[in-house]
Amino acid sequence: MAVYQTPDLTAASFSADLFGLAATTVLLLMGTAWIGKQWRLPVVLCALAALVGVGSVHEAREAWFAGQGVPVVYHYVGWAVSMPLQVMALFFLAGTAGKLSAGLFWRLVIVSMLMVFVRYLGEAAFMHPTLAFLIGLVFWLYLLGEFYFGRMDDVVRSSTGDTLRRGYFWLRLIVTIGWAIYPLGNFLTAFAGMTDDGSISVAYNVADILNRMAFGIAVLSTAVLSSEEKAGA
Amino acid sequence: MAVYQTPDLTAASFSADLFGLAATTVLLLMGTAWIGKQWRLPVVLCALAALVGVGSVHEAREAWFAGQGVPVVYHYVGWAVSMPLQVMALFFLAGTAGKLSAGLFWRLVIVSMLMVFVRYLGEAAFMHPTLAFLIGLVFWLYLLGEFYFGRMDDVVRSSTGDTLRRGYFWLRLIVTIGWAIYPLGNFLTAFAGMTDDGSISVAYNVADILNRMAFGIAVLSTAVLSSEEKAGA
Amino acid sequence: MAVYQTPDLTAASFSADLFGLAATTVLLLMGTAWIGKQWRLPVVLCALAALVGVGSVHEAREAWFAGQGVPVVYHYVGWAVSMPLQVMALFFLAGTAGKLSAGLFWRLVIVSMLMVFVRYLGEAAFMHPTLAFLIGLVFWLYLLGEFYFGRMDDVVRSSTGDTLRRGYFWLRLIVTIGWAIYPLGNFLTAFAGMTDDGSISVAYNVADILNRMAFGIAVLSTAVLSSEEKAGA
Amino acid sequence: MAVYQTPDLTAASFSADLFGLAATTVLLLMGTAWIGKQWRLPVVLCALAALVGVGSVHEAREAWFAGQGVPVVYHYVGWAVSMPLQVMALFFLAGTAGKLSAGLFWRLVIVSMLMVFVRYLGEAAFMHPTLAFLIGLVFWLYLLGEFYFGRMDDVVRSSTGDTLRRGYFWLRLIVTIGWAIYPLGNFLTAFAGMTDDGSISVAYNVADILNRMAFGIAVLSTAVLSSEEKAGA
Amino acid sequence: MAVYQTPDLTAASFSADLFGLAATTVLLLMGTAWIGKQWRLPVVLCALAALVGVGSVHEAREAWFAGQGVPVVYHYVGWAVSMPLQVMALFFLAGTAGKLSAGLFWRLVIVSMLMVFVRYLGEAAFMHPTLAFLIGLVFWLYLLGEFYFGRMDDVVRSSTGDTLRRGYFWLRLIVTIGWAIYPLGNFLTAFAGMTDDGSISVAYNVADILNRMAFGIAVLSTAVLSSEEKAGA
Repeated sequence: MAVYQTPDLTAASFSADLFGLAATTVLLLMGTAWIGKQWRLPVVLCALAALVGVGSVHEAREAWFAGQGVPVVYHYVGWAVSMPLQVMALFFLAGTAGKLSAGLFWRLVIVSMLMVFVRYLGEAAFMHPTLAFLIGLVFWLYLLGEFYFGRMDDVVRSSTGDTLRRGYFWLRLIVTIGWAIYPLGNFLTAFAGMTDDGSISVAYNVADILNRMAFGIAVLSTAVLSSEEKAGA
Repeated sequence: MAVYQTPDLTAASFSADLFGLAATTVLLLMGTAWIGKQWRLPVVLCALAALVGVGSVHEAREAWFAGQGVPVVYHYVGWAVSMPLQVMALFFLAGTAGKLSAGLFWRLVIVSMLMVFVRYLGEAAFMHPTLAFLIGLVFWLYLLGEFYFGRMDDVVRSSTGDTLRRGYFWLRLIVTIGWAIYPLGNFLTAFAGMTDDGSISVAYNVADILNRMAFGIAVLSTAVLSSEEKAGA
Repeated sequence: MAVYQTPDLTAASFSADLFGLAATTVLLLMGTAWIGKQWRLPVVLCALAALVGVGSVHEAREAWFAGQGVPVVYHYVGWAVSMPLQVMALFFLAGTAGKLSAGLFWRLVIVSMLMVFVRYLGEAAFMHPTLAFLIGLVFWLYLLGEFYFGRMDDVVRSSTGDTLRRGYFWLRLIVTIGWAIYPLGNFLTAFAGMTDDGSISVAYNVADILNRMAFGIAVLSTAVLSSEEKAGA
Repeated sequence: MAVYQTPDLTAASFSADLFGLAATTVLLLMGTAWIGKQWRLPVVLCALAALVGVGSVHEAREAWFAGQGVPVVYHYVGWAVSMPLQVMALFFLAGTAGKLSAGLFWRLVIVSMLMVFVRYLGEAAFMHPTLAFLIGLVFWLYLLGEFYFGRMDDVVRSSTGDTLRRGYFWLRLIVTIGWAIYPLGNFLTAFAGMTDDGSISVAYNVADILNRMAFGIAVLSTAVLSSEEKAGA
Repeated sequence: MAVYQTPDLTAASFSADLFGLAATTVLLLMGTAWIGKQWRLPVVLCALAALVGVGSVHEAREAWFAGQGVPVVYHYVGWAVSMPLQVMALFFLAGTAGKLSAGLFWRLVIVSMLMVFVRYLGEAAFMHPTLAFLIGLVFWLYLLGEFYFGRMDDVVRSSTGDTLRRGYFWLRLIVTIGWAIYPLGNFLTAFAGMTDDGSISVAYNVADILNRMAFGIAVLSTAVLSSEEKAGA
């Protein structure tokens, strides 16, 4: 392994992100033993999103150590798996409050996979970058639309659990704010011709604190508190 | 590790497949704690099929990074273990509905192992490729025959559980459609003289979404829903 | 890692053996949760034998990739640990039917360790190969004698459990037939001067399907069925 | 891997630290099964702090083997994750005695992260070292203030559990004494221009016995004894 | 990885030791689920001692493959962690029979750590080898004194459990006989100027069968039998 020096902020952010994601993965997997059975699936899905993050951040860091910047594809392979997992986590969390249709499930999973894939096609110049950027944006807005105005919002709103409502509110906020970095990064590298000299990777690594760590921990907290609420009721 | 660049779609598909299989493995292993005891064996077998996928995809990716295409043997070593595991998973899932004979079990396991092994012999030119291709095809058709017209279908059809019938229907469909890529790939490389410049690996990696991930998740869903059905009844 | 080509049957058999042993290990470890408490120890011991197989096969494969054939010592280091484990598994399985003496336990463990160690001494020419071969043979026959005519057979024969009797019958058969490959290989390499150009490793890898995988799965099946028998009684 | 010689005390201390942290991680993770449910979270957080230590010590050791001293950043990436984890562990341990506000939680987490980050900025000369040192000191004193005079101390003091009071007392002492090495190291390297020829790493490795191992074990002991106290009451 | 040849007994003993320790670790960790709660801690501590053995033997083997003999420090880093763990295991095992003082605990832990550390100082010539050897000897004799004539012996002797008395007897014997190899090795390398051409490592590897494997398994057996004794009573 190459040795990095103290002022190499990119390498430092990769390492800290790696440790943070590994800790999040183990915490969430342990946490599945602490909650009621209907909340286990969303928590495990968040753990898997963090686990996939461990893998992809590890490889991106290796690429950085090889000294040629980090090709954006290293981020996309991780998102291609972790984003559908997180969307599913949100779906099943909302699903603890009431019945959601299988059609909605498939729409969310497929749109989130396509969102990542289309952006990748643009980055790799397999598709016109502007077009790919715009399609990716539309997919992201569709997901936000479902989270804010779709059936999931209805079901959560009509739920009797205060904790679930509050949890869903925060998770949706994380998806709205935190995930905004991805179209932005997509815009900068595919569109504005910027290449990653490390600074974009730093931004993605910092964003992981919100998008993969805080997201998973918020799901676990919601699950723990909802389980207690239910047991207490 | 070699660093791959953004337009290297083959490497990207290997990495995403690897992460997806790892996530599937952990999900299914965690999931065994959520289901009734008779459904645990099929779920664990699917987890093992995904785990073997993690191993073989990892090695195929290394071969790709070494820059010489991916020798087809890398795929066959994985299938040699994961296909019998999946056939067993289907057998034991059907077996939750009624008694199946041990003879059927051994026929399924041995035919699925031979199917992969004969195809490999053809690919490696240890056997005449046309002959190997045809024998492999016969074995595949035999397996489909058992799934559609054999004792397993009878037992599932006479089952009282709606979930199991629906689950078996979808799993059989995955095996029919998804596994069709393997004789096709066998035909192209062993028969039509095509070598793998990466595009065949991409196809196999995409097929893994259906054959190793969706298959396992469908078994887990069937098991979870059947367990609830039974508990509720 | 070196890349191997499709016709390299030895490498392919190593990889498939590795995946099969890994899957067996995980299956048996998961399986300990499905069985009555007296059957857990034999199942875990078989899982450990498979785990040790993962380690030793992995290293033998590395040696093969380094291109100099596989020194036989790579097989012996694995057997030195896994054979006593399997003998213990058989001992504790028989021990579920009645009390067995601690003296028998120690004789079995020590003889099985010596059997492997003496053969190794012959292979490494630390001892005269013929002598080592013959001593190893005597130790093997002693083990078979205990399994067929000793106290373990008595105890199993007088057991009320049909499943246990049938399981013991099959396991003893695996040990009789499957383990016969080890004196044979010992004879060929240490005695008849054959060196391993890969074909002996292929034979050992194929034998692992019987000796380490089927053996462990037979122990798990016996344990599962005996647990149900007992719960049902 | 480079081979180190017997008089290389730095390498020896890295290896022993690594093994000690690995053992601590496994012990604490196993230990979560032995305690009441309210004590599981602090114990898991300490396990994660040790796990992160395994990762960062492993990498620091690699850097040492590469023969160029250990850039201080290797320590900081570990602390950036493990210190907030330990502060959270203390928070949730105190929280078993009474309600603590979410605001306090966020202040503790953010201050502990900033403490490490500001020190790193000083070490990397991104910020004036003196300024960074002083700000880091203020953050540390703030944390100590919360532990000694804040709400956590009140809650623990009013607790009925003797064990908890004693545990909190010792943990606070470890944080006070053990963590004093970090501003000291910061002072020496960033301020007094010392570079790490191995001796500072030895000091950090020895400090880990107190800060990451004894700390976690003290939390586990407190949890085990408190669980028994409660069960006995 | 370097490939070793069949007559390389040192490499073979390292590999077999590695597999044996790995199997012991997994067995003991699985075994914690089979025993009463007061016996879990000593069993886990023995598992950790074996786990640390896996790590240190792995690294010593790497050093051996690098072709320069095995610097003794590789053994000491493992002992520095595993010996205190085993002493603690014995302490907590005796502690199941009656109350032992915390002071005794600290004396045992600190003396066992110092014993290893002082010997290392002698080996590395940081301290006069004769002096270090003698101090190490005194520490070892102190530990034996506690085991034979101290409070632990009293408590075990007055225990009602036959199993515990027998287990303690054997464990103390292992510590007496098995650990005698460490001062002997210390004497030979630090004192008599012998360097390790592999033969000392073979001796340590063989001793591990007694000191790390049989020791842990004896603790597990004692725990299993004591749990049954108590449940039966």
